[in-house]
Amino acid sequence: MTDSYGATFPLWRASCPKDWAAYTGHPFVTGLGDGSLPRAAFLRYMRQDYLFLVHFARAWALAVTKADSIDDMRACAATVHALIDDEMRLHIATCAALGLTEADLAATREAPATLAYTRYVLDAGHAGDMADLLAALAPCVLGYGEIGARLAASGAAPAYADWVATYGGTDYQRTCAEVGALIDRVIAARLGPDPAVSPRWPALCARFAAATRLEADFWQMGWDAR
Amino acid sequence: MTDSYGATFPLWRASCPKDWAAYTGHPFVTGLGDGSLPRAAFLRYMRQDYLFLVHFARAWALAVTKADSIDDMRACAATVHALIDDEMRLHIATCAALGLTEADLAATREAPATLAYTRYVLDAGHAGDMADLLAALAPCVLGYGEIGARLAASGAAPAYADWVATYGGTDYQRTCAEVGALIDRVIAARLGPDPAVSPRWPALCARFAAATRLEADFWQMGWDAR
Amino acid sequence: MTDSYGATFPLWRASCPKDWAAYTGHPFVTGLGDGSLPRAAFLRYMRQDYLFLVHFARAWALAVTKADSIDDMRACAATVHALIDDEMRLHIATCAALGLTEADLAATREAPATLAYTRYVLDAGHAGDMADLLAALAPCVLGYGEIGARLAASGAAPAYADWVATYGGTDYQRTCAEVGALIDRVIAARLGPDPAVSPRWPALCARFAAATRLEADFWQMGWDAR
Amino acid sequence: MTDSYGATFPLWRASCPKDWAAYTGHPFVTGLGDGSLPRAAFLRYMRQDYLFLVHFARAWALAVTKADSIDDMRACAATVHALIDDEMRLHIATCAALGLTEADLAATREAPATLAYTRYVLDAGHAGDMADLLAALAPCVLGYGEIGARLAASGAAPAYADWVATYGGTDYQRTCAEVGALIDRVIAARLGPDPAVSPRWPALCARFAAATRLEADFWQMGWDAR
Repeated sequence: MTDSYGATFPLWRASCPKDWAAYTGHPFVTGLGDGSLPRAAFLRYMRQDYLFLVHFARAWALAVTKADSIDDMRACAATVHALIDDEMRLHIATCAALGLTEADLAATREAPATLAYTRYVLDAGHAGDMADLLAALAPCVLGYGEIGARLAASGAAPAYADWVATYGGTDYQRTCAEVGALIDRVIAARLGPDPAVSPRWPALCARFAAATRLEADFWQMGWDAR
Repeated sequence: MTDSYGATFPLWRASCPKDWAAYTGHPFVTGLGDGSLPRAAFLRYMRQDYLFLVHFARAWALAVTKADSIDDMRACAATVHALIDDEMRLHIATCAALGLTEADLAATREAPATLAYTRYVLDAGHAGDMADLLAALAPCVLGYGEIGARLAASGAAPAYADWVATYGGTDYQRTCAEVGALIDRVIAARLGPDPAVSPRWPALCARFAAATRLEADFWQMGWDAR
Repeated sequence: MTDSYGATFPLWRASCPKDWAAYTGHPFVTGLGDGSLPRAAFLRYMRQDYLFLVHFARAWALAVTKADSIDDMRACAATVHALIDDEMRLHIATCAALGLTEADLAATREAPATLAYTRYVLDAGHAGDMADLLAALAPCVLGYGEIGARLAASGAAPAYADWVATYGGTDYQRTCAEVGALIDRVIAARLGPDPAVSPRWPALCARFAAATRLEADFWQMGWDAR
Repeated sequence: MTDSYGATFPLWRASCPKDWAAYTGHPFVTGLGDGSLPRAAFLRYMRQDYLFLVHFARAWALAVTKADSIDDMRACAATVHALIDDEMRLHIATCAALGLTEADLAATREAPATLAYTRYVLDAGHAGDMADLLAALAPCVLGYGEIGARLAASGAAPAYADWVATYGGTDYQRTCAEVGALIDRVIAARLGPDPAVSPRWPALCARFAAATRLEADFWQMGWDAR
């Protein structure tokens, strides 16, 4: 069962149903779940996702600088820590098993899909406020939670069981719940209890949808290496 | 008569009446109007205000990077131009008459009051969005417009007639009207037609009030040199 | 003959000869020069380039906030003005002749190539200093100057004569000379008289090369619509 | 004995000996060491220092976004954690003993000295690169280490023993050693093995000296409440 991770995320997701379906139902995802994903595609994804995580951690650090309260700062700093200390371990371990060191990963040339997505998120933060930044951060964090939970519930094939265990596991799901609560706090403080009537709402939905499309492009970048 | 420069500015001003009165009615201002301001105080102010304008122009350039439309970008870029090409001329000419070159001005050590005010405004932009930045920019731009118009209407003494003519003059008053319209557009697009009911409103009023107090501190810094 | 636009640009260009050749010798460029470029490709490019210019102007405004001197601030502010007031006119006029309004242009969905390039440049500025930002800005400004000058010298075909006249013309070539001088000033102030021996040099060359590849991707995005 | 915390810090310190002495030898510091500091001065300092830490943590989070390597990102993220999870506890516990809650602390109005210092540091990061930011961060982190070590070695009076134990203690001294090593890495990577001959060196020393003077102003702000 897919958690809703708070009140705002379901509204954003519902505002771009086709983009969301194209992201969370991409053939790459199906292949992760049933084990049919070619190894070359997974490896290309893992190498680029390592670089993605570096810049995604930078974006969460930017969120620390834009938070309105110490609780929100702590929530964002905890996410930076989760990304660069915990989540990267999966990548480092997976790639190490194939002879790639962390230095190899760091030296990989960024694909255009990686550049476009990560720098779009960072710019959302620099151009706007915390709400703009969170709308651009949400599709990755919460979409991976949704996909991980779904694949874990349906019984992952062995080939990519580590990936599914990471994102479908308790730790990551708790992170998603905390990020969902952070988003709800920030949206309530900036747009009020009924955010969909705020004049800002369409722009935030557009941010969320743009980041969702960039997620689909990111899967496609890996998929193209199959 | 003092123009209201749009709909938002009067609301912000009314939200911190004591701070606004302390800024716009500071003894430094009275002395500018009746000519009684000691020359040493005016010179200290002018040297620091030159540095202030450098960083204030940086803050308006930051606004270009945060604008939602090309019209808003153009309005902010026009203000950058007005600051570093037009408004600085008064400072350069005034100081040149006393033997200070533009290089001397640029090499002046920034006073704590200058540091506090300018960096607070820049941080308002980095921490928040265009509305946060404009709330911090407004007291200087529009307060000088209000003061300049009032002193011009009451007949400025000769000693500081150039200052009064700059800020009370048609060009600067038109800039104020354009900035007021920009603020109204941004607030309407982000907080809606009745911004005072938005949950963001108190934080924007607090930004405006903090910048207003920093303006009073800036006069005081000049005043202390009398 | 192609101008060198200062001392730094030729060094950067020489550090990535294949990337530079792929950008400046892209089939799109050849088609612009001999008039063989399909109209559909040019139009896709023009619509995306309008959006590109918006974000490129934001990046030059960011440079105003990072400049070390008022002269450098003025040079960057002049470029913002040139981009959003002058260079966009070509796009607006060309598209207006085909029934597209400026509002249509502003509402165009950004292509991934546009997102990747513009946000990469903005992030170069946020992550680094003025030298990092200028290394990412240089390939577009000076590469267009080089291409425009070359096509103008070889006699442009009528189909895209306006484009060639814009970038090969005196005004744009002067802008390039000024940007080249700005780059040289900044590099000398930060890396010294022999920048290639500075430990920072490889990272700046890598910035320049990455932006150059994103320029080639941008031509390709237009070319794919032929 | 005072540790040198790496190679760069002693050079910066030696570049502004009067400013450094005024900061580390301020009467406030003497009073902390011998216990003669009036309680009112300490409390004003603690309340403002709580706000200072909030913005200082934001500045270290900004450093995460500007780091060149994952190791450097981790070092900066660890400092964010140390500031908002560990160092603030001293403030919260000290103030709680006097009936002030963390909410009271967060609601304290920032003094001009707090505004000037914190926003100057943040702007150093936005205007420049990692080296500029670290030069502005260094006086606080390493100066507190130097002061704490000196007071601890000379035997702190009971009144402020907690303060001395925090900054003179092993954990904080290790943080200082790590920050000193981070600074050395960044300076070597950007200015080379002999940084003092780089054309950037004077500007970095000026950043360090400006932040040092703002530290002295911060002590003075507390001292004025005695």
